[in-house]
Amino acid sequence: MIRRIAVYPNTRPAMYDAYCDIVDASPAERVGLEDAEALLWADPLNHGVYPEAIDQARDVDWIQLPYAGVEPFLAHLDQEHTWTCAKGVYAAPVAEHVIGLALSIMRNLHEYARADRWTAPVGVNLLGANVTVLGAGGITEALLRLLAPWDCSTTVVRRQAEPMENAGLTVPSSELHRALSTADLVVVALALTDETTGILDSAAFAAMKNTGWLVNVGRGGHVVTDDLVEALQTGTIAGAALDVTDPEPLPQNHRLWSMPNCLITPHIANTPEMGLVLLEQRVAENVRRYCADEPLLGLVDVKAGY
Amino acid sequence: MIRRIAVYPNTRPAMYDAYCDIVDASPAERVGLEDAEALLWADPLNHGVYPEAIDQARDVDWIQLPYAGVEPFLAHLDQEHTWTCAKGVYAAPVAEHVIGLALSIMRNLHEYARADRWTAPVGVNLLGANVTVLGAGGITEALLRLLAPWDCSTTVVRRQAEPMENAGLTVPSSELHRALSTADLVVVALALTDETTGILDSAAFAAMKNTGWLVNVGRGGHVVTDDLVEALQTGTIAGAALDVTDPEPLPQNHRLWSMPNCLITPHIANTPEMGLVLLEQRVAENVRRYCADEPLLGLVDVKAGY
Repeated sequence: MIRRIAVYPNTRPAMYDAYCDIVDASPAERVGLEDAEALLWADPLNHGVYPEAIDQARDVDWIQLPYAGVEPFLAHLDQEHTWTCAKGVYAAPVAEHVIGLALSIMRNLHEYARADRWTAPVGVNLLGANVTVLGAGGITEALLRLLAPWDCSTTVVRRQAEPMENAGLTVPSSELHRALSTADLVVVALALTDETTGILDSAAFAAMKNTGWLVNVGRGGHVVTDDLVEALQTGTIAGAALDVTDPEPLPQNHRLWSMPNCLITPHIANTPEMGLVLLEQRVAENVRRYCADEPLLGLVDVKAGY
Repeated sequence: MIRRIAVYPNTRPAMYDAYCDIVDASPAERVGLEDAEALLWADPLNHGVYPEAIDQARDVDWIQLPYAGVEPFLAHLDQEHTWTCAKGVYAAPVAEHVIGLALSIMRNLHEYARADRWTAPVGVNLLGANVTVLGAGGITEALLRLLAPWDCSTTVVRRQAEPMENAGLTVPSSELHRALSTADLVVVALALTDETTGILDSAAFAAMKNTGWLVNVGRGGHVVTDDLVEALQTGTIAGAALDVTDPEPLPQNHRLWSMPNCLITPHIANTPEMGLVLLEQRVAENVRRYCADEPLLGLVDVKAGY
């Protein structure tokens, strides 16, 4: 039985064309809304046309959304359709960014980038380092996978100490400061909640080794910025790389911009350009699964709304 | 049977103390030269005292040297002893530097490091990229191991096309330009010979994609510097990160220092600080093997002199 899939709307050519190519390369047939059993939504910024589209697409049972979170489509979710989204797709680039940031500050690449002449050797290995990761979500999962050949000793700090796959050690939040005290590298990959806001304050920095490095790809609010500035200035910790800041964007003339042991990237761990490639891989895999009657990836729990 | 190991000379405290700790943590007994069956040489810069040391150490059968190459000890090598050195120990940090440099330029970290304000998103993933590596030695071996979770398509270019373990594809030097033409990232990890000098010239850059990135951790002479400057300036390639340059050190005021799509590090892929930690791991492993009567790592071929 040949599956019939529609790609809609055609308002974002890069995504629309990529999705059409995916369907054309699959065993499915690409059809208009009226004849479709499945719908690949091809423009994340154009959800306003959904109601009239679905009115035409009476036979659709599966809808693939382009988002990691489905907030923009919340009003449209229903129990009549099977919804999938890009859950988990964007974790790997963020994990890659963590390693890029860590290598940059640990190997002094950010300072060499600023230099205009040949300077002295500085730098330590990530290889074999003690890495403590705050948070046990998709980013941490992807990070532990990428780090596997690095022979690091990894500790994951999460709300409950339920062991995380591929982590050397999993400890509860109550042991945060102990887990910080042994780390050569501390990675923040948490969601921002009341409990985690300001979790990296002067007490946390004091718990860290003065040779310890901080990477934040969670949210700016996890770090008390003034405490970090002081820790960087006094050498309480070795340095920090931040893809997220508080406030964000970080104002021009903020002291962090000019500190030699600090690297700021403007919330770009996963850019739209990076994202599209990965989204295409996910959608192609789901189209393959749909044609083969296999379970789809990224199923949305409509009741829960995510 | 308890093995008796000497650590000598005591002229470089960091290494001497580390080696003593290794023996003390092992099943072996730490003894003076007179009683030793094995000798851990603890100062790479002090080989002049070897003859008088070995005169006292009549029972020694195994000597562990701290070098990757044994040139400084060549005059002392003999067939009466089993010699091991730090062969292969330093490849992993260089491979790590390759990934640090690649992530830095591909994710624009070097330019964000230079910025004094929040700027626009720029960057591509190393994840899933086509990586072409020139050279099939220890660095490439270590690089392919570190890259394994990145889902890259890897091509190794070597003199003969004998397949390299963990490489997607291995091709002979005659296919260099074809292997360059598909690469998102080109890594130079060659030894410098007559054949490889200037191998990356304007013709090679023309063969690369204009979205392709270059990382050089081989020798500066592999790249024709003026051709690279032109390729960077005209956008023939996307950018370059160089740990080695020609001339080296790169003179102040050289144009490469100020190019936005270029990152220079001062030949620091493996620093002495990084090296000691890795050497310690190797020596600890060899002490363990010696005590367990297992084959030692890094055996020196005394006749061949390496």
